[in-house]
Amino acid sequence: MAATLLGLCALLAAPAAAALFPDCANGPLANNTVCDTTASVAARARALVDALNIDEKFNLTGSTSPGVPRLGLYSYQWWQEALHGVASSPGVTFAPNGDYSYATSFPQPILMGAAFDDALIHAVATVVSTEARAFNNANRSGLDFWTPNINPYKAGRDPRWGRGQETPGEDPFHLKSYVASLISGLEGGPDSKFKKVIATCKHFAAYDLEDWGTTDRYNFDAQVNTQELAEYYMQPFQTCARDSNVGSIMCSYNALNGVPTCADPYILQTLLREHWNWTGEGQYVTSDCDAIQNIYMPHDYTATREQAVAEALKAGTDLNCGTYYQTHLPVAYDQGLFDQSVIDQALIRLYSSLIRVGYFDPASATPYRSLDFRNVSTPESEALALKAAEEGIVLLKNDGILPLSLPSGRKTNITLLGGWANVTTQLQGNYFGVARFLHAPLYSLQQLPNVNVRYTSSQGSIQFPTTGNWEQLVTAAEDTDLIIVADGINTNDESESNDRYDISWSPGKIDLINQIATLGTPVIILQFGDQLDNTPFLNNPNISAILWGGYPGMAGGDAVVNILTGKTKPAGRLPVTQYPSDYVNQVDMTDMNLRPNASSGNPGRTYKWYDHAVLPFGHGLHYTNFSVDVVASSQTTYNISQLVSSCDRSRYKYLDLCPLDSFQVNVTNTGSVASDFVTLGFISGQNGPRPYPIKELVAYQRLFNIAGGSSQTAALNLTLGSIARRDVNGNQILYPGDYGLLVDVPTQATWNFTLSGSPATLDQWPQRST
Amino acid sequence: MAATLLGLCALLAAPAAAALFPDCANGPLANNTVCDTTASVAARARALVDALNIDEKFNLTGSTSPGVPRLGLYSYQWWQEALHGVASSPGVTFAPNGDYSYATSFPQPILMGAAFDDALIHAVATVVSTEARAFNNANRSGLDFWTPNINPYKAGRDPRWGRGQETPGEDPFHLKSYVASLISGLEGGPDSKFKKVIATCKHFAAYDLEDWGTTDRYNFDAQVNTQELAEYYMQPFQTCARDSNVGSIMCSYNALNGVPTCADPYILQTLLREHWNWTGEGQYVTSDCDAIQNIYMPHDYTATREQAVAEALKAGTDLNCGTYYQTHLPVAYDQGLFDQSVIDQALIRLYSSLIRVGYFDPASATPYRSLDFRNVSTPESEALALKAAEEGIVLLKNDGILPLSLPSGRKTNITLLGGWANVTTQLQGNYFGVARFLHAPLYSLQQLPNVNVRYTSSQGSIQFPTTGNWEQLVTAAEDTDLIIVADGINTNDESESNDRYDISWSPGKIDLINQIATLGTPVIILQFGDQLDNTPFLNNPNISAILWGGYPGMAGGDAVVNILTGKTKPAGRLPVTQYPSDYVNQVDMTDMNLRPNASSGNPGRTYKWYDHAVLPFGHGLHYTNFSVDVVASSQTTYNISQLVSSCDRSRYKYLDLCPLDSFQVNVTNTGSVASDFVTLGFISGQNGPRPYPIKELVAYQRLFNIAGGSSQTAALNLTLGSIARRDVNGNQILYPGDYGLLVDVPTQATWNFTLSGSPATLDQWPQRST
Repeated sequence: MAATLLGLCALLAAPAAAALFPDCANGPLANNTVCDTTASVAARARALVDALNIDEKFNLTGSTSPGVPRLGLYSYQWWQEALHGVASSPGVTFAPNGDYSYATSFPQPILMGAAFDDALIHAVATVVSTEARAFNNANRSGLDFWTPNINPYKAGRDPRWGRGQETPGEDPFHLKSYVASLISGLEGGPDSKFKKVIATCKHFAAYDLEDWGTTDRYNFDAQVNTQELAEYYMQPFQTCARDSNVGSIMCSYNALNGVPTCADPYILQTLLREHWNWTGEGQYVTSDCDAIQNIYMPHDYTATREQAVAEALKAGTDLNCGTYYQTHLPVAYDQGLFDQSVIDQALIRLYSSLIRVGYFDPASATPYRSLDFRNVSTPESEALALKAAEEGIVLLKNDGILPLSLPSGRKTNITLLGGWANVTTQLQGNYFGVARFLHAPLYSLQQLPNVNVRYTSSQGSIQFPTTGNWEQLVTAAEDTDLIIVADGINTNDESESNDRYDISWSPGKIDLINQIATLGTPVIILQFGDQLDNTPFLNNPNISAILWGGYPGMAGGDAVVNILTGKTKPAGRLPVTQYPSDYVNQVDMTDMNLRPNASSGNPGRTYKWYDHAVLPFGHGLHYTNFSVDVVASSQTTYNISQLVSSCDRSRYKYLDLCPLDSFQVNVTNTGSVASDFVTLGFISGQNGPRPYPIKELVAYQRLFNIAGGSSQTAALNLTLGSIARRDVNGNQILYPGDYGLLVDVPTQATWNFTLSGSPATLDQWPQRST
Repeated sequence: MAATLLGLCALLAAPAAAALFPDCANGPLANNTVCDTTASVAARARALVDALNIDEKFNLTGSTSPGVPRLGLYSYQWWQEALHGVASSPGVTFAPNGDYSYATSFPQPILMGAAFDDALIHAVATVVSTEARAFNNANRSGLDFWTPNINPYKAGRDPRWGRGQETPGEDPFHLKSYVASLISGLEGGPDSKFKKVIATCKHFAAYDLEDWGTTDRYNFDAQVNTQELAEYYMQPFQTCARDSNVGSIMCSYNALNGVPTCADPYILQTLLREHWNWTGEGQYVTSDCDAIQNIYMPHDYTATREQAVAEALKAGTDLNCGTYYQTHLPVAYDQGLFDQSVIDQALIRLYSSLIRVGYFDPASATPYRSLDFRNVSTPESEALALKAAEEGIVLLKNDGILPLSLPSGRKTNITLLGGWANVTTQLQGNYFGVARFLHAPLYSLQQLPNVNVRYTSSQGSIQFPTTGNWEQLVTAAEDTDLIIVADGINTNDESESNDRYDISWSPGKIDLINQIATLGTPVIILQFGDQLDNTPFLNNPNISAILWGGYPGMAGGDAVVNILTGKTKPAGRLPVTQYPSDYVNQVDMTDMNLRPNASSGNPGRTYKWYDHAVLPFGHGLHYTNFSVDVVASSQTTYNISQLVSSCDRSRYKYLDLCPLDSFQVNVTNTGSVASDFVTLGFISGQNGPRPYPIKELVAYQRLFNIAGGSSQTAALNLTLGSIARRDVNGNQILYPGDYGLLVDVPTQATWNFTLSGSPATLDQWPQRST
């Protein structure tokens, strides 16, 4: 045991990104079936595992895998990150300069989610996987990327969550559409023989807080009822596993209803592998980093460390991020806590996944092995990073000052204040790589002709208490043409292991900004980071405009300035609810319930159950006005049994994916400025189990560049799943009754229809055996 | 107004520490009475203020004072810090190297409090004020020091408080004794014509949390009942103001029972100046930094910024740390919100205080002006820093391994692990200066002969989750003679604006340390920072010893190693309660009540009201054993009216200070090793208003170097205040009944006596007018 550990330690010290491919032509494995490209994936993986002795098997269960030198199986780092671009992580090494010293850095998902543009997401993910392959070919990255984070945010479920920025928003339909496009872009499509890279949907499941009071992500036991587990928390993972056949799933730190997720056969076997048929070749579960340790401590779910690793392995956690498996599986095995077949199954899954990315195939087998740095951070990719930010930025308030009218005859003096004015890596939020450039608002404003930007570093921080710089800030705001405050929150306020307690602007910032607004000069607020309660500025008539820019990535400043000047027209929509400050006092962060509860005081979570938003999910202004009309359909009643029986089950494997109808929406730009428009369709009705949600998003389509005075048509394609609801047992049922399709936020048009007949079950939810 | 602001800004940019003395011989003030050393302090200050115009007066109300150039009154920085040594702060500038590049750095107060040695505190404070004067003479510091922090901790009131390290502990009697010695050392005694420096007792009052959920120190409205306000929260300030005549008091960020303290005439006038007679020359109140802004926002106590500054000035806040006074007083004055006499009074107090430190006197008037760097960080001062740490360190557990027996014939291998092994400035906690050296445990262990210290930087961090270094740590702990884990918490876990939510060791540390303890090698834990629940290690027989070292200052490592080897014998006592982890779930941090409350679930705070400690207040082991006996007194009954009437009121101005009796305690070292012993005396009884405290500290005396087999006698001097109690109106009353004097923790001896007669009121507490 000691010898094994010492050997392991030596190997752990090896370069992390030694992602060399085994030499299947002349290496020790050349005659092993794993190198036989004509054999089945299963046979190849089985042959490799059969060649290992038991100590070698233990060594291969950790994220920093030492490989098997005698077999020419090199060390491999399973842990790469690429949340919004290839990101610094244990397996990714950027060069200090020159080639491979940078990669394209897109906006954080929370801003890309605001674009409501699935094609954009697919394009972004395609760039990311291309750059990932280029890095891999240069031996600077592995092929497994532990992205996306697809836990539903949470600015809906809870706005305090420190990792909301990593997600596209609070709505499960939105997340499902987004993640399907993303995985397709990362992995190269579900049907290809070779995966481009392996994506990992995380954190499975009900991972929902970082550190809130005495509860943290390591000790949190999320109590979720079956209805909301099925309808909300599990939905994005259903898409990942069942519909997108993602290569990997990460089990989470928390426990779910008493069981640590990495040791829970109900979610890892019954739900994931049996109910969702996630049994394709090379699909594996990894633990979050040291989530296996968590099973033992702090969850106290097992009495010993050895029981913890054995329970996790048997439940179906194939890989351990960390060293707990490598350290404790040997003793657990000696104690007879699991059979060798269990570790074999885990390793077969892991190595099947590498076979699926061509790890044991000749370079010529895939087009990906020829990608190199010429394919990284190309002008097209960087333009896409700008476009993604522009599409996501949301115009929250505008008294007409925007787009800016900058006279050409003279310089306009713009005083720039705030902590986001001259940021660098904060543009990228968390999980980021090195970008070729990082354009802050200051830089991008300075590129404008006819503008004189007034900025000194002392204006870059609005301190609270204000001791020290209050006077400088007020003085700087005097005698200028325009004041732009670039502020909000950043990753010092919200991040991994760091939830927020407050969702209000700090008192000092409110005091300062509103005092500056008394000077008579127009004030524009650029709010970055996640949502804050903007009430003090929305209510102040001296604040002319507010833009929300999230974490906009490498070209973030350019995107904001293009919106300010009207070069690009804003059309993003809030992907989350903007809650009032007092919301955080009304419900514990640990309370997972979405539905309002009078006895606990929970006022409800997400726009589906809470209707006192400062600004609602879907809010977003334009530089023009739009009207929408649902095109009258010939059909206003649908018979449930007929809907089910007429579904083409060869095409739609699951009933919830069967079409209901495609509703056409005419969108007319009634103003004069061409602009994109995000068409949002919600369903409402009083059907199925009480209480009824206010409304639920069921479709969206972004329309592009609708000229003033002209129209375009959006197709809102509803499925049976769109209008079905989950009962208390999690079963998805289509209920007869009257429904309304509500278009836009606030609702501009409604189309009513009726479902007749008897309820039909679309999905029978498996119950946890007790 | 704009011109004033611009001028102010220019002045604010001047060097902060321009503490030049006015030229009273030839400068513009030479003929002003302020320079007449024969005039009264009041007349001198009045004359200076009379020479000012109203704009100059406004400018002088901020902590960064621009002075009055036309009068030769130089800029002055009122804000210096010296919590446990001259500290980096706006007014203190250390030289980059050479003279004045360092100062003596003593332990944090929480560790010096554990020494229970008032003479030590006086000696430390004397060094600090000497070094402060030397820095001032070199124009590297002002003469006002915003120390001590004397809010009762709070590991009693609440162990989560992020600034507990700045205080001597949880017991008000202990704090009062400590602070009286400290102020005497800093200011040079209450009766001297010239003060050495001006100390500032802060934060007045009921400042009690940093940032806990949505409550922070800026918006906290502390709800304190009159009884506990009088008996607990106000007691240290009573000593500062009434008994020690401290030069300055700082009002706090929080509100107290609805009123921001800096705008509260009840505490600043009625209590402080009227009830406690704090009306000596040059005694002033400063606000905490931007506490004036807080009155307006977030407290929303006034409708305008101008009302906030006027209310504060009128309530008796003389100086504003920050610029809110300087900015907003002019408009408030124009609005007629206060008379010029109010600002005159504030300035007279401020400049009287500078007169009291000899600011307008010739250098020859005081011995202090000749101090220079030869008086800084002297060998004696540095030895005192070591002694202070040694006296404070508390031995929490010992199975006999300590003191270490290090064989001389061979090298003993000591493996050192943990985040405190090789710290630098963490030795100093917060509010620290530059030290000539910083000796971490690693350095000091390496100085031992016959010891081979095994340490690599990878052993310096016990990460949780443990990914990455778990194996290295376990491997490092193999095949060694002794394992020392130097860990705990530090200022990343607890600090200003940062309360703790947890008081437990992290699960990863518990897992790792207890796993290492299975290796068969003795394990010693050095726990630094504030208290953690040590249950997992106290209960583990494989953990041989635990020392608590707080934040031990520049010589911290030397002190710990001297204790480990037995060169110095431990005799410190816990100045706070060590609570179980679950305590934090039982009571909100915002709940200020000390008494248990069944309906709120509050289990009680401090050892007076809570008896389920992991380790109690006063706990501390020795390398020998002691027995104690109270020497039988002739008197066992005291008549209350006789006690009151026999008090020499010319000597004791306040009844609570009158003596009850001096109880002699024989302390015998029953072992063989000479050791100090802290004699702690508590009172208990069932008298006065219910509920009754478990016991209350009333006297302590540290005895030095008691030889094995010999005895020394401690005198526990009780006053009438020692045994009086406060009723619900805050009145201090001596109640007849039976009392017990309990000696040591756990109690080793008890002396019972009786008070006869009728209750007598010692202090009539002023009520807030409603």
